Amino acid sequence: MNWLDTVRWDDKGLVPVIAQEAASGDVLMFAWMNREALQKTAELGQAVYFSRSRGRLWHKGEESGHLQTVHEIRLDCDSDVVLLKVTQLGHEPGIACHTGRHSCFFSLYKDGQWVATEPVLKDPASIYK
Amino acid sequence: MNWLDTVRWDDKGLVPVIAQEAASGDVLMFAWMNREALQKTAELGQAVYFSRSRGRLWHKGEESGHLQTVHEIRLDCDSDVVLLKVTQLGHEPGIACHTGRHSCFFSLYKDGQWVATEPVLKDPASIYK
Repeated sequence: MNWLDTVRWDDKGLVPVIAQEAASGDVLMFAWMNREALQKTAELGQAVYFSRSRGRLWHKGEESGHLQTVHEIRLDCDSDVVLLKVTQLGHEPGIACHTGRHSCFFSLYKDGQWVATEPVLKDPASIYK
Repeated sequence: MNWLDTVRWDDKGLVPVIAQEAASGDVLMFAWMNREALQKTAELGQAVYFSRSRGRLWHKGEESGHLQTVHEIRLDCDSDVVLLKVTQLGHEPGIACHTGRHSCFFSLYKDGQWVATEPVLKDPASIYK
């Protein structure tokens, strides 16, 4: 069986994807892939997602230069979630989030509120021209 | 605003959740929560998911004893994905996967195939009686 057929695509033909930084173990972001995106990711060794808002493939970093080198592609026990081990390129430390932060998961629950915990490493206005 | 209202629940009232082991950084599993599940998780300090297959709250470990202590609850930049930092209880090393493995993400893509890479730590038949 083709490895892409093993994946249990949802009713929109998508699968959720977690991107984890290989070196630090930090969970950087969460996105979606369709079949073509996953195939391209494996071929290129760079993360290619499917943008639900734009309705098209999204080669991560195509605009910002913040590409992701993919070291591992993993699938979960139900074959319906993908985990990527990546290196986040384009800045040191890596910026995965469109807000200019290292990780998208910068909001921490504390005493009934969400508190922003990570610094903005680069002004988003200078990332997306 | 109530912190639960900040979350952008999907059209089924759910949000995707990533559970990451606090000590190792390993991504253990992926599941879903509804509003009640997230509230209970915060109250109990233990992971409570919403089981889509069973259509009800699923206090992780209720059957297996493999509870998850929750150290952090994080929300991503779009407010539509939750990340938990957990300690996986009930076995050493922790077993998060129903197959008896540490992590659900044990299938690794290699040369056009998915290869199982992690050992089964405990026979699932002895976990679920």
